[in-house]
Amino acid sequence: MYLERIKSPKDIKGFTVGQLDVLASEIRRGILNRVSNRGGHVGPNLGITEAVVALNYVFNTPEDKFVFDVSHQIYPHKMLTGRAFGYIDDARFDEVSGYSSPLESPEYDCFEIGHTSTSVSLATGLQKARDLRGGNENIVAVIGDGSLSGGEAFEGLDTAAELNTNIIIVVNDNEMSIAENHGGLYGNLRLLRETSGRAELNFFKAMGFEYLYVEEGNDISCLIEAFVAVKDTPRPTVVHIHTEKGHGYSPAVENKEAWHWCVPFDLSTGNPKGEDTGEYMPALLGEWLREEIKRDSKLVCIAAGVPAAVGFGPKEREEAGSQFVDVGIAEEQAVAMASGMAKGGARPVFSTYATFLQRTYDQLAQDLCVNGNPAVINVIGASIFGMNDFTHICFFDIPMLSHIPNLVYLAPTTYEELIAMERWAICQDMYSVAIRVPEWGVRHSDIEYDTDYSHLNTYRMMRKGKDIAIIAAGDFYRKGENVADMLNENGIEATLINPRYLSGIDENMLEDLKATHRLVVTIEDGCLDGGFGERIARFYGPSDMKVLCFGVRKALYDRYDVNVLMEDNHLTDEQIMADIMTVF
Amino acid sequence: MYLERIKSPKDIKGFTVGQLDVLASEIRRGILNRVSNRGGHVGPNLGITEAVVALNYVFNTPEDKFVFDVSHQIYPHKMLTGRAFGYIDDARFDEVSGYSSPLESPEYDCFEIGHTSTSVSLATGLQKARDLRGGNENIVAVIGDGSLSGGEAFEGLDTAAELNTNIIIVVNDNEMSIAENHGGLYGNLRLLRETSGRAELNFFKAMGFEYLYVEEGNDISCLIEAFVAVKDTPRPTVVHIHTEKGHGYSPAVENKEAWHWCVPFDLSTGNPKGEDTGEYMPALLGEWLREEIKRDSKLVCIAAGVPAAVGFGPKEREEAGSQFVDVGIAEEQAVAMASGMAKGGARPVFSTYATFLQRTYDQLAQDLCVNGNPAVINVIGASIFGMNDFTHICFFDIPMLSHIPNLVYLAPTTYEELIAMERWAICQDMYSVAIRVPEWGVRHSDIEYDTDYSHLNTYRMMRKGKDIAIIAAGDFYRKGENVADMLNENGIEATLINPRYLSGIDENMLEDLKATHRLVVTIEDGCLDGGFGERIARFYGPSDMKVLCFGVRKALYDRYDVNVLMEDNHLTDEQIMADIMTVF
Repeated sequence: MYLERIKSPKDIKGFTVGQLDVLASEIRRGILNRVSNRGGHVGPNLGITEAVVALNYVFNTPEDKFVFDVSHQIYPHKMLTGRAFGYIDDARFDEVSGYSSPLESPEYDCFEIGHTSTSVSLATGLQKARDLRGGNENIVAVIGDGSLSGGEAFEGLDTAAELNTNIIIVVNDNEMSIAENHGGLYGNLRLLRETSGRAELNFFKAMGFEYLYVEEGNDISCLIEAFVAVKDTPRPTVVHIHTEKGHGYSPAVENKEAWHWCVPFDLSTGNPKGEDTGEYMPALLGEWLREEIKRDSKLVCIAAGVPAAVGFGPKEREEAGSQFVDVGIAEEQAVAMASGMAKGGARPVFSTYATFLQRTYDQLAQDLCVNGNPAVINVIGASIFGMNDFTHICFFDIPMLSHIPNLVYLAPTTYEELIAMERWAICQDMYSVAIRVPEWGVRHSDIEYDTDYSHLNTYRMMRKGKDIAIIAAGDFYRKGENVADMLNENGIEATLINPRYLSGIDENMLEDLKATHRLVVTIEDGCLDGGFGERIARFYGPSDMKVLCFGVRKALYDRYDVNVLMEDNHLTDEQIMADIMTVF
Repeated sequence: MYLERIKSPKDIKGFTVGQLDVLASEIRRGILNRVSNRGGHVGPNLGITEAVVALNYVFNTPEDKFVFDVSHQIYPHKMLTGRAFGYIDDARFDEVSGYSSPLESPEYDCFEIGHTSTSVSLATGLQKARDLRGGNENIVAVIGDGSLSGGEAFEGLDTAAELNTNIIIVVNDNEMSIAENHGGLYGNLRLLRETSGRAELNFFKAMGFEYLYVEEGNDISCLIEAFVAVKDTPRPTVVHIHTEKGHGYSPAVENKEAWHWCVPFDLSTGNPKGEDTGEYMPALLGEWLREEIKRDSKLVCIAAGVPAAVGFGPKEREEAGSQFVDVGIAEEQAVAMASGMAKGGARPVFSTYATFLQRTYDQLAQDLCVNGNPAVINVIGASIFGMNDFTHICFFDIPMLSHIPNLVYLAPTTYEELIAMERWAICQDMYSVAIRVPEWGVRHSDIEYDTDYSHLNTYRMMRKGKDIAIIAAGDFYRKGENVADMLNENGIEATLINPRYLSGIDENMLEDLKATHRLVVTIEDGCLDGGFGERIARFYGPSDMKVLCFGVRKALYDRYDVNVLMEDNHLTDEQIMADIMTVF
C-alpha cells in the first residue's frame, strides 16, 4: 500500500500516472473505511479524490497553499499530508477531525473551515499577503458548485479577480449541492459543461477570470495537464472540473443526496449500522409542517441548502411543490426572502441549524426584524446535544439572537409546546419569531399549552413554591424539574418556571418573586455569556435576591463529549443541586 | 409647480414627456433644497431622478411593487408618493426620513431599508408570494452598481432567476459605489456600457436573466421605452441603465465621492454650512494608521465600501498604494480576507461602522476567530452618539461582538489609549482583536497606558475607594469619572475602574471588590441586553454585592435626539447618581 508510506506530498512527486491511480484507489478505500465505521462526508470526498491527488502532485505544498471550502472534500488531502492513519487505522480515527485544521497540520491546512463558501475569500487574503511580500507561491482555492451559491463566495471571486495576480480557483462541479443545486447560476454551469467550457456566456469570465474546463474531473492525467497549465499563472484563473459525487462507490453515486454525509454503514450493502434512534424533534416538526402545508396554501417552507434539517427529502420536497423553496446555501437570501414573502402575504418558515444562522445576522436584524415582518425561523440543533465539531457548535444562538431588537425568540420545552408556538408564530402577523427547536430527545406532555404568545415575555409558573425559584429554559426545563424534585426531597418547595421567551424577561413575575424567594436559579442549554440568565441577573442586581446562572462557559469547543461538557460546566442535576445548596 | 399637486403617481399618468422633464427638474430642486439645508444623500438621488419618474409613470404602484436598495435613491420616489412636502417645505423636513419606510408610506414603500444589497432578496419574497397567490403585479427591484458587490445581492439574483417569473431588476449603473467600485464584476459592467449592452459576455445573462441596456439613463423617454418593453414580462429581467451620479448639480458631478452624502451646504458654492466641529476620533485614528503604513510595510488597511470611515479619501488611498484595499460593499469578504492576510503574515486592519459589521457576524466568528488569526477590526460609530437612523443604529455591537468566542473586544477611553491598543493589536500575533473606537468627542490623556494587552481581561483600577465601585467602559468612562466625583462630594470615596476589555471579566479584581464594597455600578454606551454590565451582574449574582447596570434598553430607535435618549435611559450623570443613591 502506497498510502502507508506517504508522509508528505513530496513522496508522490516521482509517481507515474498509473501509480497515482492506484494511490487514488487506496485513498478511496481509506475514505470508505473511515466513513463506514465513523460516519462523515462520503460523496464529496469520493468525488474529489483524483483532483486532490493531482493537486498535490502538481503543486508544491506547503509553499503553495490549498484552501478547501467547507472541508467536505479534504479527506484525500489529509491522507496525502501525513494523516492517512486517521483513515486506514481504525484505532486512530479520533486523531483526525472531519475538517481542514491547522491545529492538526500547521503545514498543510491553512484554516479551520467548516462553514460554506469561504475558501475563495480566505484565499484572497493569502493572495494579497503574498503580493505584498513579493512571494511567488501559488494560491489554490477549492470550491464546490454548491458552495458558489453563498454570497461570501461571490464577494471572494469579485476581489480575487480585481487583485489580478496568481490565484487558482478549482470549481469542483459535481452537479450537486448537499441536495440539488438552486439558483440561476447553475444554468450557466450546465451550459459550460454541455459545451465543454466553450460557451461565450461564462459566469467566471464575466467576473474577470481566465477559465479552463476539465470534463474528466475524475481522470488524473487530464487533471494533471490542467493544473500544470495554470500553475504559476500570473492571472486569477478558474479551473472548472466536472466530477462525479460519490465516484467509485455505487450506492453513493446512485443516491447522491443521501450519501453527502452519513452515519456508520455496512460497506457491502450501504445500510446504516446503528439502530433507529427513535423520535427526533426536527423530524417531527417537519412532519407537522408538511401536513400544515396541505391545510394552508400560504405556508411556504424555506431551506438554505440543508432541506433535511426538518426532513424535506426529495419525496417531501416534491409533495410540497411550490410551497417549498430551497435557495441554495444562501442563508442571507433565505431570511430576506422570508421577510419579503411575509410582506407579500405568504407565511414563510425558514428552518436551519443554529451554526448556519450566524451567516445571516444582519438580514435577521435588518431585512426581517426592523420591518417586523411575521416570518418564522426554526433554529435547529441549538443545544449542547447538537453538532460538536469545532466549526459547527450550535449553542451560541441565545447570545446571537435574543438581543436583536424586535425578534421574539421562543424556547418550547416539549413537542406539544413546540407545535403550539409554531402554529401561533405562523398564523400571527405582528412579530418576527424565532423558535429554538428542542434537540435533547423528544419530550411529550399533556399539559395544555397556550395558543396565543402575543403577550410577549410572559413566563409560565409551573410550580408555585417559595425561597428558591428555578427558571429553566427550553430543553433544559427538564433539568429544572429534576432539581426542583431534588430540592423537594430536601424539604425545599421550589418554584419552577418555564420562561418560554428567550428575548425578554417577565418583569412582573420576577418582581413578585422578591417577596417570598431569596434565590433565583437560571438553567439554559447554551452559552452563559450573553445568555438568558444574565438578563435575569441584571434585573435582580440592585435587589437582595441572589441569582445563580447555569449554562456553558464561552469558549471554543471541539468534538466534545457531551457528558464531560456537562460536568465541566456544573450542569448535571446533582452539580446544580450542590451549587444551589452552597449559595442558599 | 407640478410637484405640489402630485398626491400619488396616478397624477402623472397623463403627463407628456415634456411635463415629466419639468417634473424631474422640480424633483431635483426638491432634493437640493432638502440636502443643502439638512444634509443627506445627494449624488444617488440626483442621478436616479429621471428613472424614478419613468418607473412611476410606467408601472402602477401600489399594485406593482418597487424595492429601492439602501434607499439612497428613494427621495424622488417619496416626492411622487405624497411626501414632496418633506423636500420643498422647509418646515416639514422632519416628517420624512432619509430611507424607504412603510411606517411613512404603507402603500408605496415596501420595506424599511438602510443596509446595502438587500433589494433583490427582499423583492424575491414579494415575487414568490405573488406567484403563490396567482397575482400578476410587477415586482421591481432597484439596485445600484455599487450594491452589486454585496453577497446578499448575488444570492438574491440567483434565486430571482431560478423562480423564472416576473421580476424586473433595475441596475442603476452610475459607475460609482460610495467611492469607486471594486471587484472583477465591474469589468463586465464596463464592457456592457462600452458595447451598449451587446457584449456576449454578460454577467446578468450568465445568471439567467433577460437583459436590456439603456445608455441614456437620465433621459426620460428612453427610460419609458425600456420600462414599457419589460412591463408584465413573464421572465426575470435586468434593465441596466447608465446614469450620472449627481446629475444636474455640477459640484456633485465633478466630485462624486464627496457628494455621495453631505452635511448642509451652500447651494451656490457647494461649501459646507456648518463650522468645523473639531477633532473626530476615527479621523485621528486614520491619520495614525496612514503614518503607521509608512513605517510598517506589512500593515494593510481594509475598507468595505466606506473608506472614509477612517479618513481614506482619494488622496490617502493613493498614498497608501498596495497597503490599502477596498473590497467594495462586501463586509464578509473584508473579514475573511483579513483573516487570510493575517495567516499569510500581513497585518490587516479592517475599519467599518458597527451597524455594517452586523453583515459579517459569521465571518468574524468562523473565518477569523475560530482560526484565531491576528487581524484587527476597528468598530466605528459604536455609540449612542453615532448614526441615529432606524436602520443605522450603532449601539448593538457589544451584544453582537463580545460573546463571540476567541474575539478580544477592547474599549479604549481616550485617543492615547486607542493608539496604545491599536499598536498592540496590530503587532501581536495571538488574538483576533476588535477595538471600539470612541465616538463621543475626542478625549486626550497623559496617563501612561499599557503597551501589552495580551494578559486578557485585566481591568485597570483608576481610583481605589470603597463601598461603591464604578466600572465604566469606553467613551462612557468619563461618566464614571463624573459620577465618582459627585459621590466624592457626597462623602463617598468610590472606586473607579476602566475595564478595557468588553469580551470578558476580571474575576480577580471583581472578587477583591467584595471585601470592601457593597455596590458595583456598570456604565456602558450601548444596549443593556447582552451588554457588558450583565456579565458582571451574573458574576455577583450568588453574592451579597448589589449591581446596578446603566445602558440603553433594547428597542428600535429612529432619529432619536441623543439627549432625550440619555434621559429616557437614566444616563445623565445626575440620573446615574440619583439611581445609585436609591440603591445604596
